[in-house]
Amino acid sequence: MSTVDIILKKKRGEELSSEDINYIVSGYTKGEIPDYQISALLMAVCFNKMNERETYDLTMVMARSGDMLDLSRINGVKTDKHSSGGVGDKTTLVLAPIIAACSVPVAKMSGRGLGHTGGTIDKLESIPGFRTTMSDEDFINNVNKHKIAVVGQTANLAPADKKLYALRDVTGTVDNQSLIASSIMSKKIASGADAIVLDVKCGSGAFMKDIESATNLAHMMVDIGKRAGRKVCAAITNMDQPLGYKIGNSLEVEEAIDTLKGKGPKDLTVLCYVLGSRMLYLANAAESIEKGADMVKEVIENGKALAKFEEFVEIQGGNRNVTKDYSILPTAKYTYDVIAQGGKFVKKIDAEMIGKAVLILGGGRLTKESKIDLSVGIELKCKVSESTKDGHIATVYSSSEEKAKKAVETVLKAYTLSDERQPVPKLLYACVD
Amino acid sequence: MSTVDIILKKKRGEELSSEDINYIVSGYTKGEIPDYQISALLMAVCFNKMNERETYDLTMVMARSGDMLDLSRINGVKTDKHSSGGVGDKTTLVLAPIIAACSVPVAKMSGRGLGHTGGTIDKLESIPGFRTTMSDEDFINNVNKHKIAVVGQTANLAPADKKLYALRDVTGTVDNQSLIASSIMSKKIASGADAIVLDVKCGSGAFMKDIESATNLAHMMVDIGKRAGRKVCAAITNMDQPLGYKIGNSLEVEEAIDTLKGKGPKDLTVLCYVLGSRMLYLANAAESIEKGADMVKEVIENGKALAKFEEFVEIQGGNRNVTKDYSILPTAKYTYDVIAQGGKFVKKIDAEMIGKAVLILGGGRLTKESKIDLSVGIELKCKVSESTKDGHIATVYSSSEEKAKKAVETVLKAYTLSDERQPVPKLLYACVD
Repeated sequence: MSTVDIILKKKRGEELSSEDINYIVSGYTKGEIPDYQISALLMAVCFNKMNERETYDLTMVMARSGDMLDLSRINGVKTDKHSSGGVGDKTTLVLAPIIAACSVPVAKMSGRGLGHTGGTIDKLESIPGFRTTMSDEDFINNVNKHKIAVVGQTANLAPADKKLYALRDVTGTVDNQSLIASSIMSKKIASGADAIVLDVKCGSGAFMKDIESATNLAHMMVDIGKRAGRKVCAAITNMDQPLGYKIGNSLEVEEAIDTLKGKGPKDLTVLCYVLGSRMLYLANAAESIEKGADMVKEVIENGKALAKFEEFVEIQGGNRNVTKDYSILPTAKYTYDVIAQGGKFVKKIDAEMIGKAVLILGGGRLTKESKIDLSVGIELKCKVSESTKDGHIATVYSSSEEKAKKAVETVLKAYTLSDERQPVPKLLYACVD
Repeated sequence: MSTVDIILKKKRGEELSSEDINYIVSGYTKGEIPDYQISALLMAVCFNKMNERETYDLTMVMARSGDMLDLSRINGVKTDKHSSGGVGDKTTLVLAPIIAACSVPVAKMSGRGLGHTGGTIDKLESIPGFRTTMSDEDFINNVNKHKIAVVGQTANLAPADKKLYALRDVTGTVDNQSLIASSIMSKKIASGADAIVLDVKCGSGAFMKDIESATNLAHMMVDIGKRAGRKVCAAITNMDQPLGYKIGNSLEVEEAIDTLKGKGPKDLTVLCYVLGSRMLYLANAAESIEKGADMVKEVIENGKALAKFEEFVEIQGGNRNVTKDYSILPTAKYTYDVIAQGGKFVKKIDAEMIGKAVLILGGGRLTKESKIDLSVGIELKCKVSESTKDGHIATVYSSSEEKAKKAVETVLKAYTLSDERQPVPKLLYACVD
């Protein structure tokens, strides 16, 4: 069986065998099969699809192409959460200490931001002194002792996926559900968690634009996880507007802390309940999802989640007083109010455009090598269905007047106002078990 | 408009603009667009097709990617013939002198053989002394003076097609009709003929396996030629078994000369009438196709075609006595009779397998760099519907015993015998104007 034969097989709409998929992925990773054959195959997959068995095989071959983390020295059910990416999504910063405060181990590898979406590691690094790298030994010890550790990806996780993703990006072959699902799940499976809660974002600011395709993707990822022997469930959630009110690294840390204090924005809080309750249920720490939600509520109300956050910050080298004094965080030099005309209420906020405004301010990365300014960002003053407060729709935090001007323009474009009040958007669309 | 945008456009099934096609082909030819993007686009074209306008645009951009031959210094309507390739097809050797003998200029660039199909240039070179290269000046002078010149491709014809074809070959994207049609027609249009007769082979030994797809391809190529302002027509002809009885370079020269003498095999002779009459009609030398056939008959019967062949051989440096003495041609050291049991009549002959047997003997090229043995080949002793003559189905001409043994086995596999006589296969399936 040659590479061309495998391409022709998929082109004819036939099912690839496990051997075919293994041959292709391992040959490509080793550099024995050239890019131009793989991109032709990927395009054939976009047209003729892959079934669940093929998708699972692809996931596992990619997962096994690099390190498979062994978390067996951590006691308890190791629980992870994955979000398909969005704007203003600081959920991990809130959820990790909540779950740890419920005595469920959180051993998390997180990524950095790229393009209009942010990353947990960048956000954590805006806390002075916070370290996102540590030895494997320290990582496991911290989780066993404190139930929590969050680090950047140092391990060589699913290198085959990395190579394939870079190729898909430049060949118009990103948007196949099997390819998306296997890309996400290969990294999750390689990173060793026993239970995984998936947050599939849906809407203008997300990759999945409609509920049907988001639900389909969720089903595929849950199927892969179960075939791989993991406990998995997925929530399909709204990303038609940014999550919460603050977007930008240190601004998001503030909002996460507010949420741990029980005074966070409604949508972010609801999302933490939705995902947190499911994480606790999958980890066998709660008898039901409802009981899981009660536990989340309890650790927020009794201050244990906030205390766990402070403990977490301290063990990773950061200043634990950040929860009491936000001025410890990097602060932008200038603030600019964004004033809009055209309606009393917010009708729409284009999440992707808000993400791009933060990018303009220097708060995100255009390429993997870009340096970012942790102090800048945008604070929304009103969200969909809310009043525009005499036109003051947002505040821009910037370190340069010029960048601020461009960001203000972009924020203005992102908002659509109306004189009629819109209903409050739904946050949770559906769940897949 | 970026390359990825163009890939996505075709992936969605939209029509590419002339600018898109120009951008892609010229960028690829210059090496500015990488193979992996082009192969993804080619695969999208295989699924979503190209319409006639797109196919025409692709053809012209490829034609213009290299030299566009200017034959304006040749008097009269320059006429060319193209065959989509087959086994035992020595038609050009017969047709070129026939057309020239009718005073219609034949200025032909021909190719060498590759794989199981032969090439006119190799066949001509089996005539001792024959030169297939000459200066542009000599080429044009010969055609003006003698009405005939056949040379190997020295000009840089359609390099974009060459590069694209090599990529299609290794990415499973060969079999799209628009890509096939534009590949053939780009070279024909660049080589400057005013009138082109296309011989689209159909059957087990050809790329087009059924009449429907061959007819569709013929329509596409005729459409392209007309859009480019050329006179074009196509004949769809049978390639279920080899053409004529002799396959192999010097053997095919013998059979071509026999045909010029009016004693060639039936199928080859009919094909020369079909294509020759249409070439004369398109060149305005005959009032109708029927009149064209009369002219072909006349120059064969009065010996003018054979005389033109001798003149042609002589002006290109070869020994004109070859028409009288075939022993001037390279002769194989050994001959082996192939004896078969299993039936009194021939039911089928797999043309491709016969071509492969010649390849085994060293009479064809496995790669472009292979050296070939002009003396070897196979003479079929019986064809479909004919009697097996007590089992003697073929004679193998070889320069080595070992190769001969393998070739004999392959020839045996190529034949299917039966005790029932089959009808004589049809040669001409259809014509497209």
